Amino acid sequence: MAQTKFFHHGRFALAGGVLPDAVTAYRTYGDPKNPCIVFPTCYGAKVADNEYMIGSDKAFNPDQFYIVTFALFSNGESSSPSNTPTPYNGPYFPAVTYEDNARAQYAVLTKELGVTKVYCVAGFSMGGQQAYYWAVMYPEFVERFICICGSARTSPHNQCFLEGPKAALVNAVDFKDGHYEKNAERGLRAFGRAYSAWAYGQSWFRRKAYLKNGMYTSLDDWLRAEWETSFYPQFDANDVLSLLRTWQLADVSKLYAHSTMDPSTRPGYMKVPDTFGDLHATLGAVKAKGLIMPSRTDLYFPPEDSTAEVDAMKSNATLVVVESDWGHIAGGGGCEEDTNFIRDQTHKFFRETS
Amino acid sequence: MAQTKFFHHGRFALAGGVLPDAVTAYRTYGDPKNPCIVFPTCYGAKVADNEYMIGSDKAFNPDQFYIVTFALFSNGESSSPSNTPTPYNGPYFPAVTYEDNARAQYAVLTKELGVTKVYCVAGFSMGGQQAYYWAVMYPEFVERFICICGSARTSPHNQCFLEGPKAALVNAVDFKDGHYEKNAERGLRAFGRAYSAWAYGQSWFRRKAYLKNGMYTSLDDWLRAEWETSFYPQFDANDVLSLLRTWQLADVSKLYAHSTMDPSTRPGYMKVPDTFGDLHATLGAVKAKGLIMPSRTDLYFPPEDSTAEVDAMKSNATLVVVESDWGHIAGGGGCEEDTNFIRDQTHKFFRETS
Repeated sequence: MAQTKFFHHGRFALAGGVLPDAVTAYRTYGDPKNPCIVFPTCYGAKVADNEYMIGSDKAFNPDQFYIVTFALFSNGESSSPSNTPTPYNGPYFPAVTYEDNARAQYAVLTKELGVTKVYCVAGFSMGGQQAYYWAVMYPEFVERFICICGSARTSPHNQCFLEGPKAALVNAVDFKDGHYEKNAERGLRAFGRAYSAWAYGQSWFRRKAYLKNGMYTSLDDWLRAEWETSFYPQFDANDVLSLLRTWQLADVSKLYAHSTMDPSTRPGYMKVPDTFGDLHATLGAVKAKGLIMPSRTDLYFPPEDSTAEVDAMKSNATLVVVESDWGHIAGGGGCEEDTNFIRDQTHKFFRETS
Repeated sequence: MAQTKFFHHGRFALAGGVLPDAVTAYRTYGDPKNPCIVFPTCYGAKVADNEYMIGSDKAFNPDQFYIVTFALFSNGESSSPSNTPTPYNGPYFPAVTYEDNARAQYAVLTKELGVTKVYCVAGFSMGGQQAYYWAVMYPEFVERFICICGSARTSPHNQCFLEGPKAALVNAVDFKDGHYEKNAERGLRAFGRAYSAWAYGQSWFRRKAYLKNGMYTSLDDWLRAEWETSFYPQFDANDVLSLLRTWQLADVSKLYAHSTMDPSTRPGYMKVPDTFGDLHATLGAVKAKGLIMPSRTDLYFPPEDSTAEVDAMKSNATLVVVESDWGHIAGGGGCEEDTNFIRDQTHKFFRETS
């Protein structure tokens, strides 16, 4: 049984400010002598939730690999609005980007765990977006990356979709501009409801898969049991919003764009690249081998975006579409058949690139 | 210039109760001696908004047809929470179904306007759903119907999508369980934001069509100008919710299911049909000729649902998919090319069935 560990960075610069003692939560699986797989969390996940893809019969086998899972900043385990002391608590928590997360994770790997090379960075959804950042930011360190139902840049439609749940939460009667004394139950339950219809394909609903073979009696029953509670009570409202901001800021071609640090005092690795804002050129320069797995029916990370991104990476990346009506959730462990397909494609990718 | 007229029904039974003096708002265009086209409103529309399809160069030519446009109950012009006196005001307004709307519109046509046969009932979105109801409820009266971006039954996914904007509104700080003294601005603006990403196809966003050729500078700029204001201030929050309930209750195979009237006292035309709940059989019995025009990229009335419904109607109905990336809005007048395509297909349908 893996334990969650906490790495203290001390003073650590994020895009929107500096935390006096930033913390990254992580878990490790397997022998540190084996090739390393880095596997960051997705939206609405705790670090333990990544275990759906870890096991001897899963995509990532701890008998063969040294697997390190990371909690994203703002997930409630790594530094987040809910666990950071004044003056960076709650609504005062600074903006965080994927590059901040990747830098923090890199620090844990190199300073604490002695990792000198990463065999593969893999992730689902926000985790998949992070995998792109890893490939761009650490070309000499990352050999492979896998992006499941994610993208290198959050598309305008994806941004717009996120504005819906966000509007439901920030205008809710108990959110109080983030200054609630008790977690915003109504806001978070509304957030879940406004999120729900985006998570699966239309045909998944058409065949009433939400009834879960008789577990629920109606759409509303399912919404109440699975979506009003998908964030409440286990996630803090300010955390949910901060994590959403990281998602919305994603654009791997715009590294360090959101940093408030004076450009003249930034370390070398934080220099803005010449290809700033040019996604095609940024992806064209990626050295790591990529496996990009969108779901056919994903409503907010549609396969069209993945196709364009794979084309930009030329022969370095492979596109494999998960043929599923589970929409985005196809990559999140909701459907065993899809999870097994992703496992098999992952193993094939490892064989063919090793 | 057409004027809005108001028909007073007197005491009128709706699904959820009886209004002492129900009102239907409508407009007429053209000569009453010409064949009659009935054209009810969609969600978030006033009766005048239907003019985007009325004109000598439009789908419905007032030189050839007698066109009657109807405001749906709860749109703020026909009887609605916002304009109904105590005891049925605001949150106390009874539930309304499409069958109530069709019955009310039928009364206006036959009692006030002397119409004895309808050449075509046509509508977009909720208006298109109403067209299905007309065809099922008045088989001897309706010769043709056109459903643009609508369906005969609100699918589970469509229901679920609607729960998002609804949750944003009903949990908003100024909604106050419908007992606001001033229209719920924050709730309605959140409602608009939670609705926005559903209205267009993903590729419409990908090509940044929301910037409207330089009219806006960012996604947020467009959201503020076009979506936060799509319901506020011109629509009342309780109206918006009541109309949404009509939409969610749509199932043309379940006529009178929601009526609170004692079945033994219902008039003959309100008897529940033998095919209750059987959409395939209900549609199979439709006599009117149907033209069903979904948009290829409509996220909540996807063409798959229309295909199944057209199949059920056999040779009586024709499916024509609008090939557009404007999503649902393709049918709502947002894109001139799509509007013209729908016009041309409408004229073709009229020629081939006359």
